[in-house]
Amino acid sequence: MNTVEVNTPGGRYPIHVAPGRLDRLGDSIPADATAIALITNPTVAAHYASRAIAALESTGKRVIRVELPDGEQYKDWQTLNLIFDALLQNRLDRKAVLVALGGGVIGDIVGFAAACYMRGVRFVQVPTTVLAQVDSSVGGKTAVNHPLGKNMIGAFYQPVAVEIDTDVLNTLPDREVSAGLAEVIKYGLIMDPAFFEWCEANADALRRRDPQAMAHAIVRSCELKAQVVSADERESGLRAILNFGHTFGHAIEAGLGYGQWLHGEAVGCGMIQAAELSARVLGLPADSVARVRSLVEAIGCPVAPPDLGTDRWIDLMQVDKKTEGGQLRFVLLPRIGEARSQAVPDADLRQVLAQAAQPATEQG
Amino acid sequence: MNTVEVNTPGGRYPIHVAPGRLDRLGDSIPADATAIALITNPTVAAHYASRAIAALESTGKRVIRVELPDGEQYKDWQTLNLIFDALLQNRLDRKAVLVALGGGVIGDIVGFAAACYMRGVRFVQVPTTVLAQVDSSVGGKTAVNHPLGKNMIGAFYQPVAVEIDTDVLNTLPDREVSAGLAEVIKYGLIMDPAFFEWCEANADALRRRDPQAMAHAIVRSCELKAQVVSADERESGLRAILNFGHTFGHAIEAGLGYGQWLHGEAVGCGMIQAAELSARVLGLPADSVARVRSLVEAIGCPVAPPDLGTDRWIDLMQVDKKTEGGQLRFVLLPRIGEARSQAVPDADLRQVLAQAAQPATEQG
Repeated sequence: MNTVEVNTPGGRYPIHVAPGRLDRLGDSIPADATAIALITNPTVAAHYASRAIAALESTGKRVIRVELPDGEQYKDWQTLNLIFDALLQNRLDRKAVLVALGGGVIGDIVGFAAACYMRGVRFVQVPTTVLAQVDSSVGGKTAVNHPLGKNMIGAFYQPVAVEIDTDVLNTLPDREVSAGLAEVIKYGLIMDPAFFEWCEANADALRRRDPQAMAHAIVRSCELKAQVVSADERESGLRAILNFGHTFGHAIEAGLGYGQWLHGEAVGCGMIQAAELSARVLGLPADSVARVRSLVEAIGCPVAPPDLGTDRWIDLMQVDKKTEGGQLRFVLLPRIGEARSQAVPDADLRQVLAQAAQPATEQG
Repeated sequence: MNTVEVNTPGGRYPIHVAPGRLDRLGDSIPADATAIALITNPTVAAHYASRAIAALESTGKRVIRVELPDGEQYKDWQTLNLIFDALLQNRLDRKAVLVALGGGVIGDIVGFAAACYMRGVRFVQVPTTVLAQVDSSVGGKTAVNHPLGKNMIGAFYQPVAVEIDTDVLNTLPDREVSAGLAEVIKYGLIMDPAFFEWCEANADALRRRDPQAMAHAIVRSCELKAQVVSADERESGLRAILNFGHTFGHAIEAGLGYGQWLHGEAVGCGMIQAAELSARVLGLPADSVARVRSLVEAIGCPVAPPDLGTDRWIDLMQVDKKTEGGQLRFVLLPRIGEARSQAVPDADLRQVLAQAAQPATEQG
């Protein structure tokens, strides 16, 4: 088993990565927990809920099960309230522990529920998608969406443990694997050129879920993310580099309606746009931009941004929370393996967006 | 001007207490704030919004105004979302500052909005009731209610400053003054016997809002509360004593429907019940119970609990978040000026509740 430690002001916790962790979930429940709520969705539950519940019940504690509707379009207040309703109806107290079994939507919404329920209860992340395993389950960013923007309502709130069972990726649709790999290559792009090269060399192996390659990709991604969030939990500086590709990506998701493109697909495409912007603003070499595009394509993500119209693109990006004082900032690459947050001239941005002026690809 | 310092892991901030602070609100806005949202209700706005806005606009920053419906019954998700809608429609970013101008409901809901908006923005508390000035605005407890329980959804989230203008109490209804004084005498009961005696000697002066007496009561209450929350921000131990009278009080509020009794009224009456329970469980002398009752009456709060029926009382108290693992715990007094959290035998609780078997007093 690989263990990666995360150490933030808001909490210190382990990420365990190994096949079969699902059957050891009881290990991650604190001894003084008064009850456990397993929160998942019907899609994940069909594969894994009974094993997870058996593992949790081995602690001898009461386990309740809560199912939320599946999909980014349900990552909202209404779904969040389904959790609160269930916790209160079952009288879970402030020493209860929530367990988030699912992808990024489940992790984000359960984490936020844990942050708010009785002003904070403990929770365990059990991510079941590549994306959640390498990104959203680590670092304590929790949130729900608002009609006017993604992840606008949330909290920085750390889990007590992240349990990554690499076996669960076997039941994942190909499209979800590809989308998750977009976040994997992001880590190479922003902070580890050798890992980016490793991803280039192993793109096919990753796409076909070779267990060894996938385990390495997950552990290395978690190490890199842990390094960043341990240094900057609340995104006051360094952590912003993790948003590489995300300002474009969020605009794609919001512009097409949440759930049309997967988050990782939007980020993959957004990284190409961010690389193009990096070329204009910071002089990232053209062949580096081409390498980004090739690798995004090789892992199976779309490379053509939808045509939202330039003004709509900019409008959507302005509501993004990385805007400060009205000035649009982007995470850009001076070279592969290095990132910085940077204000961008309007003209450069518009030229990059003009390249998106082609019919939107239907991804849903 | 009196300044009380609060120092918690979640933030260090001053409480300023003085007449006329409302006109100096600009002083509390951090220099790097990108915009300010003044959030209040129509009742408070009629008296103070224009002065507050003038003071905030003196910073040269953009000020938006948000009005929420007035009353505990609106301390819910729907009202919270009105804040998020306004902040997003006006494109306030994560360096914006929220200003809560109002009583405890406004302070709790705005504080929670600040905790969640873009995963946390700064906020200033400007409490306009006695209750909010001595209690809810200090210490970072923020929340909204859920149909199944009061303050069930919230966060520990500290303001950057608390600005207490003692002049604003002049426009407060008598009933609100009395309700707030219940929390003032609570501090004496749980941790400062000399202050409790001072309250007994000054009950009339407090009730008629004598400026000197009121200023002393507010500053001393803030000092005592700051002492507790600085030692235990997240209510893992000591801070629980601040809930003296609150388990009974919350049951009154939930049982009659939020908004029927004022929170302070319910706490005042709840403190008498908690004193009676203290007599049975910890041997608090009968004359001490009588002093609690007399002082609650002297400040103008109801002393007869509503007849909710014993089973309903217990049911309502069990959902209270101070329950852990199903065992009912109460903050009790071994003597006036000292408090401890304590598990209570069911029989003692039922005997105290049996005394509530009389027609409910209509307080609305």
